[in-house]
Amino acid sequence: MKSLSVRIPAVLLAGLLCCASLAWSEPANLTDIKAQVARQHDAGVKRLQEWIALPSIAAEDRGFREGPQHLVGLLKSVGFQHAEIVATDGKPGVFATLDAGAPRSVGVYMMYDVKQFVPAEWSSPPLEAALVDKPGLGKAVVGRGAVNQKGPEMAFLEALRAFHETGKALPVNLVLVAEGEEEIGSPHIGQIVHRADVEAALAGTVGVFMPSAGQDPDGVVTVSLGAKGVIEVQLTASGERWGKGPGKDIHSSLKAMVDSPVWHLVHALNTLVSADGNTVTIDDYPQPRPINAAEKAMIAKAASRMDESQMKARYSTSHWIDDLPFQQALERLISQPTVNIEGLVGGYTGPGGKTVLPHSAQAKLDLRLVPDMTAAGALAALKAHLARHGFGDIDVNFSGGYDPTSTPADAELIQAQIAVLKSYGIDPVMWPRNAGSYPGYVFTGAPLHRASGHFGLGHGSGAHAPDEYFVIDSTNPNVKGWDGAVMSYVRYLYELGK
Amino acid sequence: MKSLSVRIPAVLLAGLLCCASLAWSEPANLTDIKAQVARQHDAGVKRLQEWIALPSIAAEDRGFREGPQHLVGLLKSVGFQHAEIVATDGKPGVFATLDAGAPRSVGVYMMYDVKQFVPAEWSSPPLEAALVDKPGLGKAVVGRGAVNQKGPEMAFLEALRAFHETGKALPVNLVLVAEGEEEIGSPHIGQIVHRADVEAALAGTVGVFMPSAGQDPDGVVTVSLGAKGVIEVQLTASGERWGKGPGKDIHSSLKAMVDSPVWHLVHALNTLVSADGNTVTIDDYPQPRPINAAEKAMIAKAASRMDESQMKARYSTSHWIDDLPFQQALERLISQPTVNIEGLVGGYTGPGGKTVLPHSAQAKLDLRLVPDMTAAGALAALKAHLARHGFGDIDVNFSGGYDPTSTPADAELIQAQIAVLKSYGIDPVMWPRNAGSYPGYVFTGAPLHRASGHFGLGHGSGAHAPDEYFVIDSTNPNVKGWDGAVMSYVRYLYELGK
Repeated sequence: MKSLSVRIPAVLLAGLLCCASLAWSEPANLTDIKAQVARQHDAGVKRLQEWIALPSIAAEDRGFREGPQHLVGLLKSVGFQHAEIVATDGKPGVFATLDAGAPRSVGVYMMYDVKQFVPAEWSSPPLEAALVDKPGLGKAVVGRGAVNQKGPEMAFLEALRAFHETGKALPVNLVLVAEGEEEIGSPHIGQIVHRADVEAALAGTVGVFMPSAGQDPDGVVTVSLGAKGVIEVQLTASGERWGKGPGKDIHSSLKAMVDSPVWHLVHALNTLVSADGNTVTIDDYPQPRPINAAEKAMIAKAASRMDESQMKARYSTSHWIDDLPFQQALERLISQPTVNIEGLVGGYTGPGGKTVLPHSAQAKLDLRLVPDMTAAGALAALKAHLARHGFGDIDVNFSGGYDPTSTPADAELIQAQIAVLKSYGIDPVMWPRNAGSYPGYVFTGAPLHRASGHFGLGHGSGAHAPDEYFVIDSTNPNVKGWDGAVMSYVRYLYELGK
Repeated sequence: MKSLSVRIPAVLLAGLLCCASLAWSEPANLTDIKAQVARQHDAGVKRLQEWIALPSIAAEDRGFREGPQHLVGLLKSVGFQHAEIVATDGKPGVFATLDAGAPRSVGVYMMYDVKQFVPAEWSSPPLEAALVDKPGLGKAVVGRGAVNQKGPEMAFLEALRAFHETGKALPVNLVLVAEGEEEIGSPHIGQIVHRADVEAALAGTVGVFMPSAGQDPDGVVTVSLGAKGVIEVQLTASGERWGKGPGKDIHSSLKAMVDSPVWHLVHALNTLVSADGNTVTIDDYPQPRPINAAEKAMIAKAASRMDESQMKARYSTSHWIDDLPFQQALERLISQPTVNIEGLVGGYTGPGGKTVLPHSAQAKLDLRLVPDMTAAGALAALKAHLARHGFGDIDVNFSGGYDPTSTPADAELIQAQIAVLKSYGIDPVMWPRNAGSYPGYVFTGAPLHRASGHFGLGHGSGAHAPDEYFVIDSTNPNVKGWDGAVMSYVRYLYELGK
């Protein structure tokens, strides 16, 4: 659940396909806006810092009074005539519209929540958003949400502000939805998007994009045509539910006469995947659509521009599954469903041992889904499988997730991205499907069937990790700084308006 | 590793087989000592409180300068002519001798360490050892170590003090060994016991006993003839050691191309036990000696005095393994080796989920052993099994443990216990083998081949738990208070000296 790490191959692409000699010559109508972007640079960065100082974290019930209000204020300040908080059964969303009197409308998807953080792990305070020198990159804002997703989102809002301040009409109308639960799997995004008036507004758009920091340090940009789906579940075995084993932690010597809910969980887990952990063995599991020729060709082309050893180093991994060659490993990445154990926790978890027979244990799983699988289908199959194998007592807590999402390469939303990137001299890597997940299904699925994707120049990294950053003053010729990122949205909006 | 919970059935025995009408008439030679015990009551309780205030906790490297020194001081104050700290590769032990000029010598085993504790979980501060009213029991010292094992041990020392103060010769000589690592599995007890002079001194004893709070609230006392052995191991799967999977936690979407050390651990665990978790399936595992007729008869007799429903309630357990009837479940308890998962920990362990593919995971296991299994044999078989099944990369960290221990019922040390208990009108429950473990093997095994057991009246509970207590002023006619506990040791020493 995170749109950044999702662009897995992007940072790993070796080829440098931009820049200077192919640089787009500025059309005259951008001069005023560009000047305004430069004028508002300092204030814009300050607005980003102020936003980072207001974290909304769904997993911690933190910042949900101010968070959506602050975003509504920001939206109104950049020209949205309508911006409102949308209540859901979870954290509220935001719905906003900007009617520019343009013939076409574009949807925008944003998140105002951020991932949890542990301040002690950071080299500068995560809510201070200090400007820090990053070797090889330049000055960057370091803070929670810097790149995931407030930095790119604020750059997009600054693009709108530049239109607003210069009195220039936006080339498209905007329909914006934002949520505050992206980091917990967007459990209520449907309640925002499918509210009748919101859905109707989105139905009139050419598609929905999310502002994103699309550049890797080597300048490569990936255009992705979708993302895997995912379900996150916590499987809990307990003596209470099982009716066997203890109802509280008891002395481990009793294992000789009392059943163990921890072993029960281990045995249940063991049935979910093959012996190597890599093939899903859940009975009657939704079947993935096999990878097709177009996807294979796209992967082959992308693989030829990627540096396998750099990717292995980045992920501290010396072998891909089954010692697959790189291209097949990438095919596996985009096409195979997975059952991953995010965490195991049960009984005594401190240093050394403690002689207890625990009354419960939990496995946290994420199951990634590819077309034509559905989140509901996967969850139902998992539950039925557990029940059939004698593990029906194991609690399956579905904490979030959604279907896979796909957008065709010829969608206007995507073609406009490619056109803008080419105008910058960037030959994007086309990628069939992010292995990570984002809730694009809510736009690409029924009933909206809109295109959906990510767009934006600029660079950042460290989403979900300490020292998350977004480059403001770039010293790297392959990477746009703040004003360049802002201008990429200006150009994208013009391209979409064509 | 814990001598108290080890007496599993004791608290659950329903029959009340004491007390008043059968009460032993005091022999004249105990009158002076009894009066002295009463005189030193307050000071003795204070000495217990002072000792509790000085916790030694091996798992936390806490209190190992003062702990053994304090014990040496206590021993000297009650008449041990020799008492010294014995260095080991771990925490120091204590060796002490009291030569009473008696024809016979008795060994005493003590521990000066206590279990970890979390003060917030206690209703009175765990190091203050406050005197608290316990309904149905009377006033009890509440503190860490109160019953496991400082309370009973101090009661024993107060018995020696009473001899000392009244100038009466002890009926036996004493050879005492104490350790500071009982709670972590006594990894260095051999370095204390097998030091040449210590071993020689112990070799001359009739056996070695540990002071213990032997009475349940219903007055039942169990005489146990041994204990299971145990090994504690932490199994850690990691990408680093495996050479597959990541070397750090990475985004879970990569599961489609990167192996998972967590699944590797789950699959390894799955091979260790049968599908129900209850039969060890480690290849070439040491074979238990089958339960014999004498043990079965002892269990049958004990079971007839136990309250199954009370035991089920105590352990929040509604069914024994395989729905066994009580007697067979108890036979299983004393005769079957186990592989228990004490804890699972790996990856993300907080609330909800987090989309990581963890680089490592750990299972904490304890494996209980019965005659004729050995700790070394079990550990070697476990490692060989893992290697044979493709899990040789999984780190097996042996953190402590030892062989099972057995003492014949006709040993003098045991017969003296039975005689003293009968003199109190108590018909003890004879029990073949505690399911928990204590390092009696170091005395009962080669080369010493001494008897070993636990003895002492009085009552306490909550070892390893919050609000651990030991009764001081008993209002329960089935339970001795402090002076009664002290006197039980006086009588035991006289009986041993006969």
